Amino acid sequence: MEKKKELIEQVRKEMNEWLGGYFSGRGTYEKKIFEAMDYSLNANGKRIRPLLFLLGFSMFSGDYKKALPVAGAIEMIHTYSLIHDDLPAMDNDDLRRGKPTNHKVFGEAIAILAGDGLLNEAMNIMFRFCCENNMQRNLDACRLISESAGVDGMIGGQVIDMLSENMQIPLEQLYAMHSKKTGALIKASIVSGAMTGGAAADELCLLAEYGEKLGLAFQIKDDILDVSGDTEKLGKRAQSDIENKKTTFVTEYGLEKCMELCGKLTVECMENLNKISRDTSQLEEITMYLLNRDR
Amino acid sequence: MEKKKELIEQVRKEMNEWLGGYFSGRGTYEKKIFEAMDYSLNANGKRIRPLLFLLGFSMFSGDYKKALPVAGAIEMIHTYSLIHDDLPAMDNDDLRRGKPTNHKVFGEAIAILAGDGLLNEAMNIMFRFCCENNMQRNLDACRLISESAGVDGMIGGQVIDMLSENMQIPLEQLYAMHSKKTGALIKASIVSGAMTGGAAADELCLLAEYGEKLGLAFQIKDDILDVSGDTEKLGKRAQSDIENKKTTFVTEYGLEKCMELCGKLTVECMENLNKISRDTSQLEEITMYLLNRDR
Repeated sequence: MEKKKELIEQVRKEMNEWLGGYFSGRGTYEKKIFEAMDYSLNANGKRIRPLLFLLGFSMFSGDYKKALPVAGAIEMIHTYSLIHDDLPAMDNDDLRRGKPTNHKVFGEAIAILAGDGLLNEAMNIMFRFCCENNMQRNLDACRLISESAGVDGMIGGQVIDMLSENMQIPLEQLYAMHSKKTGALIKASIVSGAMTGGAAADELCLLAEYGEKLGLAFQIKDDILDVSGDTEKLGKRAQSDIENKKTTFVTEYGLEKCMELCGKLTVECMENLNKISRDTSQLEEITMYLLNRDR
Repeated sequence: MEKKKELIEQVRKEMNEWLGGYFSGRGTYEKKIFEAMDYSLNANGKRIRPLLFLLGFSMFSGDYKKALPVAGAIEMIHTYSLIHDDLPAMDNDDLRRGKPTNHKVFGEAIAILAGDGLLNEAMNIMFRFCCENNMQRNLDACRLISESAGVDGMIGGQVIDMLSENMQIPLEQLYAMHSKKTGALIKASIVSGAMTGGAAADELCLLAEYGEKLGLAFQIKDDILDVSGDTEKLGKRAQSDIENKKTTFVTEYGLEKCMELCGKLTVECMENLNKISRDTSQLEEITMYLLNRDR
């Protein structure tokens, strides 16, 4: 177990270094946008999505270093979505990962543009990666990432979230919202990583199912943490769902059933991984970490 | 001349039909985002950038219809930038192309997400195009479009614009701002179109120079129209640069010299086109149209 953790920490460290240096020293008249993107991109994120991508990649291919740019692109997409979600017109949050939100530091205009810039830069990186490694599977993987982030995926989920504020929504809609808002990019991260690494179709199917369950477990855990976690550890305002009168898995199922559901999904995730004849120990490790996390 | 105009009108019509049908009937819980994207995407735009792409493509390859999606993607990128530029935190404009701006109709949150959605959808379309037509030149073209829209291109230019409000900026900075804000995507449209069509390196160089001059002429003309045009024809608030105390080519050079400069750049555009041993008559036509436009 210790060895697995070491590898995950190693990958996370390299990802952090790559992202940490990405925007440094860039820009002239528009230097501020690079500072703003860098601020949110390197604000103590858990790097879950790039880790899923890189661990998925590593299951099928040797050197994950060459896939770091695509993993970084995924983290940029995730980060842009947080910046825009936090805006006054959206969730109007002041705190994210224990630091003031982007618009609190750089103002609303720059925060909007920093979000746009991160999304666009992610696409630049993926196009460059495909230009330099022109293989169908790389293109298919980048297309999947891009689509999962768009109006049929993450953005669509955020729209449902926005339109559901201060409103009781049916359970079906709650599931649809989360499967788009958080599920799509989490699932795409693991599947695209494995795809880029060279996984076969049946392996991709198993990982897609794994990613779907993991994404759902992740969201239920988030809802649990919103009521039971504390602001300091979370790095964002706890109880915000209650304040915003949001329908969550906790309001629908209650805390106990949510924890049960989270555990059940984690077991199912493990079962999926067991069906794959590869070393899935890293993914098992991160699955358990996500279940037991306190932020 | 009449015949050339007819072809341009034909291409514009097909582009409008393609874009008009693109989002129709999509979405369930998040239907509103599709309506919002559709609203701005089909609000009487001039379709300059997709036309440049498709005319560039047509110079080197027969059937422009198969390249319509990439042209549409470029128009989506342009449209998203207008939606975000118009936001209260940015230029705070109420009118665009003679209609209320996106946030005036759909609210700020949906307008931000509609912009995000259009940018993301443009990338989806380009990845799909490359997946289905996996050729290096298509990938290079899409990469160029994507990069021209990002922080080193259009977004960077908008940042400079934002940071320069109510401020006298040096001429050098004014040029840098416009070459990024409007120039980069205009230039990329024509170059990527020709690239996708199969142009050779020397032809791409000539078209890149053409695109650069055209982009600059376009912006100077915009500045001229802002002082001399009228709100009704422009479809957006005239004199807005003066109200926002912006440095423009008109404030720096005066109206007369701007018109002279515009004409001179147009002549240079024509000279560039003449050096290319292809039928450049459509591009000549659109170059003249851009010089003489009143909106």
